[in-house]
Amino acid sequence: MVPGEPASGITMQIRGIIFDAYGTLFDVHSVASLAEEIFPSKGVALSNLWRDKQIEYTRLRTLSSRYVDFLRVTEDALRNACARLRLPLAERDLERLLAQYHRLDAFPDAVATLQRLRSQGFALAILSNGTPGMLESVVDSAGMSGLFDHLLSADEVHKFKTAPEVYQMGVAAFGCSAAELVFVSANGWDACCATWFGYQTFWINRASDPVEQLGVAPTRQGRQLNDLTDFVDRRTGS
Amino acid sequence: MVPGEPASGITMQIRGIIFDAYGTLFDVHSVASLAEEIFPSKGVALSNLWRDKQIEYTRLRTLSSRYVDFLRVTEDALRNACARLRLPLAERDLERLLAQYHRLDAFPDAVATLQRLRSQGFALAILSNGTPGMLESVVDSAGMSGLFDHLLSADEVHKFKTAPEVYQMGVAAFGCSAAELVFVSANGWDACCATWFGYQTFWINRASDPVEQLGVAPTRQGRQLNDLTDFVDRRTGS
Repeated sequence: MVPGEPASGITMQIRGIIFDAYGTLFDVHSVASLAEEIFPSKGVALSNLWRDKQIEYTRLRTLSSRYVDFLRVTEDALRNACARLRLPLAERDLERLLAQYHRLDAFPDAVATLQRLRSQGFALAILSNGTPGMLESVVDSAGMSGLFDHLLSADEVHKFKTAPEVYQMGVAAFGCSAAELVFVSANGWDACCATWFGYQTFWINRASDPVEQLGVAPTRQGRQLNDLTDFVDRRTGS
Repeated sequence: MVPGEPASGITMQIRGIIFDAYGTLFDVHSVASLAEEIFPSKGVALSNLWRDKQIEYTRLRTLSSRYVDFLRVTEDALRNACARLRLPLAERDLERLLAQYHRLDAFPDAVATLQRLRSQGFALAILSNGTPGMLESVVDSAGMSGLFDHLLSADEVHKFKTAPEVYQMGVAAFGCSAAELVFVSANGWDACCATWFGYQTFWINRASDPVEQLGVAPTRQGRQLNDLTDFVDRRTGS
């Protein structure tokens, strides 16, 4: 199927489905077991702070127009998280932890959900802060090769989410309006800001968190990736 | 003294000193005791999450060009923090907690430090995400009226830190280059991004945290506001 072309046999209101990568398809906290091995009893704390700092640095660098790529941001965030937790980080362990980002675990229902959507004729994409190299390797590692029509990296515009230029990449790739696309994220802030941008949005709310208080809400939410299939079935009338 | 004019008798390399407000001069966690009264055993957790969400929302709204003022952001952050912690927030308690932001405690050495700098002839300013009304009331409440030449609010540019447009307000107010001004913040990210902008910066690092890993460092750091006086003494050669 050509991306953007209606699938035959269904009333097509959705021209494509765009997934966030980290936290949505891939479990960023799957680094915690290696972190725990290196720093006993501190694995979860390190994993959480590493992720928080990673997100924070993407935002600060975008606000201040000081882009470096997501691999560098991820390394910087790891160094700071370790320093903040007073964990001495050997270079070799830094390399081992960073290498995990190239082979994060996919969430258990990710591959099956993507395959089902694909078999229904939906064009699929990833739109992520990750570098092209990071995205290719994590997709390959998870057995998702060939499932996506587009792997879209914020590296192309040298800004990170939630800059509109990043969300615009999905529109450009599919050649249709944001309202004809579904953007899927497990990061509540990403789902909200993508809604502001104009996408139909689906928030994978695994922890039953409240919606971010930003004066905007995702179009719909579910508890797992598989819940997305009901949403797009209803939208397409299939 | 006219802002920007050299003080007599010293070799003036600093044309003014600009302070961040929240977390730097005023203790945002002085809300914790009221929070504890309303939600026993949860006061500190609420205070911390409220602050984190407040900062997060300023960044998301600036990145996504969806400005609302800091009073609204502060209310939104409080509502979300309570929801996330599963704390039922009555409207009356919301109003009581928000009212605290107009009379936050100043850090113990804040007034004396400001008075000393002022007596040395330095022009002083606040540059903050807070609205003009929030800044005026918290300054008055802390007994700092008359100590500042400028109260500069991000509300004027409808962006929050760390957007360069916000830091630029200090330059515009003093009518000199950023390099001739000292920007003081206890928020490490604020001190780093102000350094990127071009200010001489002083980070009040009360918790002895590591510098944010952003490829830039504050010009200097200290443990308390009073440490700033050594820094500016050395710079001016007095």
